[in-house]
Amino acid sequence: MDTRPVRLGVIGLGPRAETLLATLRNFSQEECCVTAVCDIALQRVEKILGIFAANKLPLPRTFADHRKLLADSEVDAVLIPTSWNSHLAIAADAMKAGKYAGIEVGGASSLDELWQLVRNAESFGGACMMLENCCYGRNELLVTNMVRQGLFGEIVHCSCGYEHDIAWELVDKNGCMCERGFQNLKRCGDLYPTHGLGPIAKILRINRGNRFLAVSSFASKARGFRRYAEKVGSPVTEFAMGDVVTSVIKCANGETITLTHGISLPRPYSRDCRVQGTKGIWLEDAKGIFIEGISETKTEIDVAGNPYYTHVWDPVEKFYEKYDHPLWQEFRNNPTGGHGGMDTLSLRAFLDAARNRTPPPIDVYDCAAWMAVTALSESSVAAGGLPMPFPDFTDGKWIYETRGKISKWDLNA
Amino acid sequence: MDTRPVRLGVIGLGPRAETLLATLRNFSQEECCVTAVCDIALQRVEKILGIFAANKLPLPRTFADHRKLLADSEVDAVLIPTSWNSHLAIAADAMKAGKYAGIEVGGASSLDELWQLVRNAESFGGACMMLENCCYGRNELLVTNMVRQGLFGEIVHCSCGYEHDIAWELVDKNGCMCERGFQNLKRCGDLYPTHGLGPIAKILRINRGNRFLAVSSFASKARGFRRYAEKVGSPVTEFAMGDVVTSVIKCANGETITLTHGISLPRPYSRDCRVQGTKGIWLEDAKGIFIEGISETKTEIDVAGNPYYTHVWDPVEKFYEKYDHPLWQEFRNNPTGGHGGMDTLSLRAFLDAARNRTPPPIDVYDCAAWMAVTALSESSVAAGGLPMPFPDFTDGKWIYETRGKISKWDLNA
Repeated sequence: MDTRPVRLGVIGLGPRAETLLATLRNFSQEECCVTAVCDIALQRVEKILGIFAANKLPLPRTFADHRKLLADSEVDAVLIPTSWNSHLAIAADAMKAGKYAGIEVGGASSLDELWQLVRNAESFGGACMMLENCCYGRNELLVTNMVRQGLFGEIVHCSCGYEHDIAWELVDKNGCMCERGFQNLKRCGDLYPTHGLGPIAKILRINRGNRFLAVSSFASKARGFRRYAEKVGSPVTEFAMGDVVTSVIKCANGETITLTHGISLPRPYSRDCRVQGTKGIWLEDAKGIFIEGISETKTEIDVAGNPYYTHVWDPVEKFYEKYDHPLWQEFRNNPTGGHGGMDTLSLRAFLDAARNRTPPPIDVYDCAAWMAVTALSESSVAAGGLPMPFPDFTDGKWIYETRGKISKWDLNA
Repeated sequence: MDTRPVRLGVIGLGPRAETLLATLRNFSQEECCVTAVCDIALQRVEKILGIFAANKLPLPRTFADHRKLLADSEVDAVLIPTSWNSHLAIAADAMKAGKYAGIEVGGASSLDELWQLVRNAESFGGACMMLENCCYGRNELLVTNMVRQGLFGEIVHCSCGYEHDIAWELVDKNGCMCERGFQNLKRCGDLYPTHGLGPIAKILRINRGNRFLAVSSFASKARGFRRYAEKVGSPVTEFAMGDVVTSVIKCANGETITLTHGISLPRPYSRDCRVQGTKGIWLEDAKGIFIEGISETKTEIDVAGNPYYTHVWDPVEKFYEKYDHPLWQEFRNNPTGGHGGMDTLSLRAFLDAARNRTPPPIDVYDCAAWMAVTALSESSVAAGGLPMPFPDFTDGKWIYETRGKISKWDLNA
């Protein structure tokens, strides 16, 4: 195993870059060093350099043009927290330059931008990984581990989603405050599928013996953003995005997945996780797991004197001690970094792949399949819920099961 | 208000009739008396008479042909707990005879059997009510009451379902033990939509200013029944029914409803209720309600020093004292009868309508719209998730909002 620090470039220096850099400051100098940063806006570059200086860190080289950063031989890998409209094209450029590219979460606007990503990953020796931190969430990994050990039996149905009231982040008295606001102003579909879908795709071994076949999507009326926009006096109030977008995905191995997107209504946060098999179920919103033979089933008597059975949830925490994923058994006593430690684990996984030039645990085919949901769900909503087929970005390679574990970060084995 | 006891006939004397009669034994002689019973199987008639005798109740007249019972002038209203394949035709006969018919829950096999029901209800002076006990569940009525008072704002999205492990009831070493087993052996769709969908339809005022427009349905692979059948040595193992059937319904007023059917996998019971509006949400599985301005929203700080907000569930019970539905405020200190008291309330609502010959709170158009989901979901599953449009069983009358409250049992006002 290579032990050099990975030399990182960061392209796009907005708020997400600040969070990523805050997490990276907890990493040792042996793990990585940020040697280059890039943004088209000079004031963002200056702000980031200020953060480096304040933390007494060596200053990185600075670029305005991402292609010049990508040509820098002192950079092994790049993180690309740029806008949703640019990060896939920049990632494609990164792979053309032979770099490892860490792509932020989000969705695609067209299928073709995903094909470009795939073809460049296949042609130039680079690789990309989606930094889907939720794939490294404690409960997601716990359940992955339990599924791999057979505790849930054969998986038949899953749910996931992103339900988070962020209207306040997207609109204020000046109108839409950020690109994501504009995206929700103009588009209607599941624009943010991967926090929920990534972990579920890993559990279902999508692209490793299974694949997404088709998605049908449905949007509720759009009221939440309008209500918030009117409250704060925004000049734009008519958002295209339905408050709740529901999608159902069918998989080649017969599983169904229900996917929900809702970011405009007041409610507690949820990623709506549900993993259900022939022997057990995890339901995030119930904070519970039921496993046949482990969890309690009570016998009760109805008014007519006949017996019936009541299955009882176990709290998820009951399973931590015995079934925490190896990554979390190591990490659980000191989970540092953004989003409860998930950012740390996903970045470490990326650095490990970049350092050793091994296939990343969330690869270009995963990126393409997961992000395709966005473009396809928009099409399906527009067509009244018509099922939209997924392209096979693997050109048939998905039919093979995973063989062997690449590294301890591997989510597929 | 008429105060005569309602003279009831019971057609179909299987286990559900026993539960209904057990609940009716708690009713006073001023409310109702069972004057006639009917079954094609003599041993079921004898068993029921034995129950009457054991409880020292006057013996009802007995019939083998339901048409003869319906011609009996000593019968005001009938309950029809017969098989799914016969209860709608018998209900149509009951209305032709001018009786009030209480229909058990379930779904339709064809749209035409629902049209027959509707046309007979419109033509002969009888009426039917679906005895959907869950419409009178405490939490369902609590939330209905809160929605009517505006606490949830404008409703935009709902979920509901029937998730209940009943494989043990449907199959044993002899194969399918009951009609429901055969239904699940041969059919794939949402065969049991109304426990979840009924209360949601009432909240959304379906057929009273709103209506179901279309449904798309998706079935997971079928493993649960097979696994159970193999375990108990059943000669039939290949069930058509997917373990989890997911449907999405679109409504005329722009709401979406996600509906789930799952009866073959081990898991805790749920009706999957979710009611979400611009100001609040109820989520059954979280045992929680969040209402803007009532429930807590915490301000927290992320690793980069930026603020974010955490909405916190209130337990449902917090709202009982102030917002219990009037029916439950009256009932809550002594909820007797089957299914936690819901059977009592739905039967009282039916008896009240039959006694006063007023429109029942769950009428023939509700029956038709709710039960149509079954036939349409089968079609949609068969067509790969294609959206299937709902007929307008009201012939356009749905566009008018409810005006005034018919009785205290009314769920629409």
